[in-house]
Amino acid sequence: MEVCQVLHMNGGRGEKSYAQNSLVQRKVISMTKPIAEEAITNLYRNTFPASLAIADLGCSSGPNTLFAVSELVKAVDEVRRKLGHQSPEYQVLLNDLPGNDFNAIFKSIAGLQEDMRKQMGDGFGPCFFTGVPGSFYGRLFQRKSLNFVYSSYSLMWLSRVPEGLEDNKGNIYMAGTSPPSVLKAYYRQFQTDFSLFLKCRSEELVAGGRMVLTILGRKSEDPASKECCYIWELLTVALNEMVVEGIIEEEKFDSFNIPQYTPSPLEVESEVEKEGSFTIDLLDVSQVNWDAYDEEVHQSEAFKDGGYNVAKCMRAVAEPLLVSHFGEAIIDEVFSRYGEIVANRMSEEKTEFVNVTVSMTRKG
Amino acid sequence: MEVCQVLHMNGGRGEKSYAQNSLVQRKVISMTKPIAEEAITNLYRNTFPASLAIADLGCSSGPNTLFAVSELVKAVDEVRRKLGHQSPEYQVLLNDLPGNDFNAIFKSIAGLQEDMRKQMGDGFGPCFFTGVPGSFYGRLFQRKSLNFVYSSYSLMWLSRVPEGLEDNKGNIYMAGTSPPSVLKAYYRQFQTDFSLFLKCRSEELVAGGRMVLTILGRKSEDPASKECCYIWELLTVALNEMVVEGIIEEEKFDSFNIPQYTPSPLEVESEVEKEGSFTIDLLDVSQVNWDAYDEEVHQSEAFKDGGYNVAKCMRAVAEPLLVSHFGEAIIDEVFSRYGEIVANRMSEEKTEFVNVTVSMTRKG
Repeated sequence: MEVCQVLHMNGGRGEKSYAQNSLVQRKVISMTKPIAEEAITNLYRNTFPASLAIADLGCSSGPNTLFAVSELVKAVDEVRRKLGHQSPEYQVLLNDLPGNDFNAIFKSIAGLQEDMRKQMGDGFGPCFFTGVPGSFYGRLFQRKSLNFVYSSYSLMWLSRVPEGLEDNKGNIYMAGTSPPSVLKAYYRQFQTDFSLFLKCRSEELVAGGRMVLTILGRKSEDPASKECCYIWELLTVALNEMVVEGIIEEEKFDSFNIPQYTPSPLEVESEVEKEGSFTIDLLDVSQVNWDAYDEEVHQSEAFKDGGYNVAKCMRAVAEPLLVSHFGEAIIDEVFSRYGEIVANRMSEEKTEFVNVTVSMTRKG
Repeated sequence: MEVCQVLHMNGGRGEKSYAQNSLVQRKVISMTKPIAEEAITNLYRNTFPASLAIADLGCSSGPNTLFAVSELVKAVDEVRRKLGHQSPEYQVLLNDLPGNDFNAIFKSIAGLQEDMRKQMGDGFGPCFFTGVPGSFYGRLFQRKSLNFVYSSYSLMWLSRVPEGLEDNKGNIYMAGTSPPSVLKAYYRQFQTDFSLFLKCRSEELVAGGRMVLTILGRKSEDPASKECCYIWELLTVALNEMVVEGIIEEEKFDSFNIPQYTPSPLEVESEVEKEGSFTIDLLDVSQVNWDAYDEEVHQSEAFKDGGYNVAKCMRAVAEPLLVSHFGEAIIDEVFSRYGEIVANRMSEEKTEFVNVTVSMTRKG
């Protein structure tokens, strides 16, 4: 199992995409598939477009990258064949930050196109693939050029670490002990980023175009709720131990914060309504185990392995952030401690990620 | 100085782009710039599109990659400002084979966008960049989605080594001693490939869309003319020496052929007319020295360095072809001999590449 999220950091300053493809992410894609398929087949039935442009924002690079979009294309093609229509021309636009490994994606496209032709027969396609480097907190595509936008496990990454976190000492993310000013600063950054995202997509989508987003989030209205913050709190425990032991400087620790926000369904809904270009068709909450193997393995040893797996997964997400702040030297030690802490907690309680999925239609 | 061409080999079988960015290619881009700029500004003045999609086919990866397209965008923007119009949204589509280093291109785009904004002011853009992996001897873009197609020094590469070259023993390309069947086989492959290219682009370009292609070619109607074949004949000399010395097996040598065709202006014109979707606006022939430094350096030592430079340049193009046929072991020896041979000839005669540039408009 590898990591759970795609790390999105904005700006031109050596930005990188820590694209990861995990079993967790795969599971989330599969769980939310009916929602995305309903949206895209509905779009197809309503408009029968001669060409269908589908963008995957935060596509990352790995086995999951082409999985989601190719499932969407297959869903449309099934409807198309049932109705006896001619195939639309599909345009798949794969977006991630410029540091993402697009070369690796591009090398696997010919194989996928071949598989699609075999599976869907001669009447299918053509299906074109393009790579679009850049932050989705800005315009990426031409005006009214998209029919469908999809994004899974990317939009919880903020464009930057929020300003005004000076009083978040002893924490690296929102936590029960964070002062209200910190929670507000995080929320404001989410509002700024997510409303900009919506505005950009509203310009790029055609009227009637659809968008399905799955965001790592929370059910509770408390932004410091355990369901979204606990996984980072355990990393805080590991780092704090090392501060106490003098391995990490306290000042360094106090000035480190994770650029993520895990919104509630209501917060997502509120931004969509404020921006005003979209109507919400569906708002869904789902859960997935920290260690996606857990549900399948059912072994007593699973917790120990699970802790190791989750630590490995979180390492892939957090390592670049930690390295740029603390340097390379402490990393192995941090994650060795983190793995033990996570394994302990997983053996004592059910640990889950919460996913907020929103399906919407461009007005007009 | 690096290499002169982008090697295009078709098919899904471990294809690669040996994208090279040379002073020769840069010079050719600059020489043919007025033709491309005339075409794109003309297109702009005639249609004032709200969005302008420009594809660079065989864009390669290196300092020249973004040079040509960014000059085209600048030319349009100059006209736009003079006329006091609002900027169109530019969409730049960079195409090369899936083996091309798109990651390297994508990392330099943010810097270019920044430079463009500075140079062209606040009213400019936006200008979006996307990467499109695949062979241009097939469909790459959605129907009627392009306004302008540009390609420089890529279309002389055939999609494959032609069939029927069994009688080309002792040569690795068309040569004075090649039998007519070999010349015909090469020409047929060019016709097949180039007409397919035209057909695909005719589907992708909007009516009135423009296309400017520069192809390594020849002036003469003799396909084995020295002006296009000599550079390969000198490589043949080097390989043949090594056959005589028993370093290379004769059979191996006899079965090796370069997948290139350097057409005459008439041959280009003839295919365009046969395909029927385009009207030719301009057909131009230009020349550039084998060693582009030559014209600038004016030193007696230049020929020797020139030979070395040209050999280095041809090595980048030919090495992958030679390695896949002969193996790695002989390569250094081949190009050491080739460098000496080239230097000798360059000191005795003026050696030039011929470029055929065609500017055309999509009918309809």
